[in-house]
Amino acid sequence: MTAAFPCAACCDIGGTKVLIGFVDQAGNVLARERYLLRAPREPAEVAAEVAARFRRLAGQTGLAWEAVIGVGCSVAAMLDAEKGVIFSAPNLGPWQGAPFAAILREATGLPVWLEMDAQAAALGEAWKGAGVGAEHLVYVVVGTGIGAGILVHGRVYRGWRGTAGEFGHTTVEPDGPPCNCGNFGCLEALAAGPAIARRAEGALRQGRPTAIRDMAADGAVDARMVFDAARHGDEVALEIVHKTADYLGVGLANLIALLNPEAIVLGGGIARGAADLLLEPIRKAVARRCGSWVDLQGMRIVVGALGDDAGLLGAARQVWEAASSEAG
Amino acid sequence: MTAAFPCAACCDIGGTKVLIGFVDQAGNVLARERYLLRAPREPAEVAAEVAARFRRLAGQTGLAWEAVIGVGCSVAAMLDAEKGVIFSAPNLGPWQGAPFAAILREATGLPVWLEMDAQAAALGEAWKGAGVGAEHLVYVVVGTGIGAGILVHGRVYRGWRGTAGEFGHTTVEPDGPPCNCGNFGCLEALAAGPAIARRAEGALRQGRPTAIRDMAADGAVDARMVFDAARHGDEVALEIVHKTADYLGVGLANLIALLNPEAIVLGGGIARGAADLLLEPIRKAVARRCGSWVDLQGMRIVVGALGDDAGLLGAARQVWEAASSEAG
Repeated sequence: MTAAFPCAACCDIGGTKVLIGFVDQAGNVLARERYLLRAPREPAEVAAEVAARFRRLAGQTGLAWEAVIGVGCSVAAMLDAEKGVIFSAPNLGPWQGAPFAAILREATGLPVWLEMDAQAAALGEAWKGAGVGAEHLVYVVVGTGIGAGILVHGRVYRGWRGTAGEFGHTTVEPDGPPCNCGNFGCLEALAAGPAIARRAEGALRQGRPTAIRDMAADGAVDARMVFDAARHGDEVALEIVHKTADYLGVGLANLIALLNPEAIVLGGGIARGAADLLLEPIRKAVARRCGSWVDLQGMRIVVGALGDDAGLLGAARQVWEAASSEAG
Repeated sequence: MTAAFPCAACCDIGGTKVLIGFVDQAGNVLARERYLLRAPREPAEVAAEVAARFRRLAGQTGLAWEAVIGVGCSVAAMLDAEKGVIFSAPNLGPWQGAPFAAILREATGLPVWLEMDAQAAALGEAWKGAGVGAEHLVYVVVGTGIGAGILVHGRVYRGWRGTAGEFGHTTVEPDGPPCNCGNFGCLEALAAGPAIARRAEGALRQGRPTAIRDMAADGAVDARMVFDAARHGDEVALEIVHKTADYLGVGLANLIALLNPEAIVLGGGIARGAADLLLEPIRKAVARRCGSWVDLQGMRIVVGALGDDAGLLGAARQVWEAASSEAG
C-alpha cells in the first residue's frame, strides 16, 4: 500500500557522499538513504542515480511517486540558484557551467530547486533546527573548508551574482599563511580542519611534548587527534583549540558587525565534532571582538540541531515555499 | 507665487552641521540650506530649528508648505528606523532613547522617516548617484569614522535589531592598535582620519624626513596634510596612503566575500577628499585580497557622485517610496 499525501524529494550532494530523502510539508523526514558517490561523477550520471534511488526509496517506503511535488537539491558547489547552473564544484569535478537543475529535472520528471549546501543548511536549521524563529540567520560551515549561508528575512541572501557567503575567504590575519584561493590569512587557512592539523604538525616539528605525537605514529595528523588530545587536557592541543576559536571569533565578529544577525548556527565536521571544546571559546572570542559599537545583546551562537538532515530539510523548504507561493 | 506640486522635505543631521532641502519625486533638489548645529543640542530643539527652517526655506523658494508630503531625516546616529528611535548618537550628545521621528513629526506636523546617515547616503547614491542600477550596493563612509549602509534588492538592510553596517568595527589586524570601541585592530582604528594622522605623527616622532613636518609646524597633524604631501611625492606620506588603502582593501574584500555586492560607493571626508590618491590603490588592494573564490567580475568600486546631497536624496527616497507604496 502506498500513501498519496504530497511530499518533497530532496538530495544533498556532497563531495563524496549523497543523502536523499522525502520530506512532508510539516518538515518530517519520511525516509532517507545515504550512499557514496562513484567516480567518474558526471552531472548526468549523478542525476540519473539520484532519480533511480528516489523511485526505489519511494517504493520501499510506501510513498506514491505521483505524490512527489518537486525536487530540492543541495549541492557542495558555487551555483546560480535562479538559473540552476553550477559555477564551480571543486569537490565534484569539472561541473562548471552544468545546468544541473535542468539535468535533474530531466532525470526525475519533476521541477527542481537547486541550492548551495550552506544556504540549504541555513534554511533547514531556520525551519526545523537550532535557528527556529530567526529571520536573520547565518549558517556557518566549519569543516575541511569554511563557508556561510546567509538568511535575510528568512530568505537566502545570494548577492548580485549569487556568490555571497564566502566567509572562509575573509581575511582575519593580513600577514597570515597562504590560502588555496591565492590570498593570505583567510579564515579557512587558519581555522578549517587542515589548518588545525598543520598547526599540530608545526608543534610536533618544534619538538613540543604532546599526546598528538603518539596518536600520529604513522606521521599523519588530523584535526580529530587534536580534539581528542585536548579532551585529555593536552596543553599543545588546547592551545591549538583556543587559537582556532580566536580566529573563528574574529571572523564571526566581523560578520556580526556587518549583518547584525539574530542567530549564528555552526555546522560542518569541525564545529559539530568539537562543539564541546570550541563553542564556549568561540562565544568568548566573539564577545571580546565586538566592542561597544557592535550589538550582541540577545544574539545566539549555537551548534546546528539537525546534523546531516539540515541540507535535506532546507532543500525541502524551497520546494514547499515554491508550492505555497504558487498556491497563494 | 508658490508652486503646489508635491515635494519631500529632507534633512541630514550630522555631528556639527545640518543640511536641509526639498526634493521632488524625480530626485531634483529644489532648494537646500546648510547651517551649524548650536549647543546644547537637545533633540526637541534640533527638531524645532529644522521645522522652522523648513518653513522659511519653503517660503523663500516659493514652495507651498501644504504640498510637502513628508519628512525624510538622515541622522549621524545608530537608530531603530522602524520605531524612529535613536540608539546612540555620540556626536550629537545624550540622544539615547529619543523618539526623534515622533519629535520631528510633532515639530513639523508631517509624517517622518528616520534613517542612519550611511544608509540614507546608500539610498541616495543608488537612486541618483554613482550606484544607479545597482540593487545590491554598499555605501562606505571613510571620514573621522568608518561605517557602511547596505542595500539588498534596493532596500536598506538593517539586520535583526537595526544595527547592521558597523563596517568600521570589523577587525582587519587582530593585534592592531586599540579602537575607541574596546576592540583591537578595527578598520576604523587603522584607516579613518585620526588613524592616518596618528601614523604621520609616528613617522615624525621617528625623525623621518617628510614635508608633513613643516605643515604641522604647530604640532597638530591631520589627514589633509598627509594627502597634500603625498600629492607632492612625499615618500612618508605616500607610504601612509598605501597602508591606508591596504587596510581598506582588506575590509572591503571581506565585505565583498560575504555580500557579493554589485557596487561599492565610497563617501565621507577622507574618501572624497583623497579619491585621487586612494581609489586606485584601494581597487588594487581589493583585487589582491579577493582570491579565486571571491567573485569580483564586473563589480565596481567608485566614489559617490552626489557629495553632500547623498543623504538628503536618500532621505527623500524613503518619503517617496512610502508615498508610492501607499498609493499602490
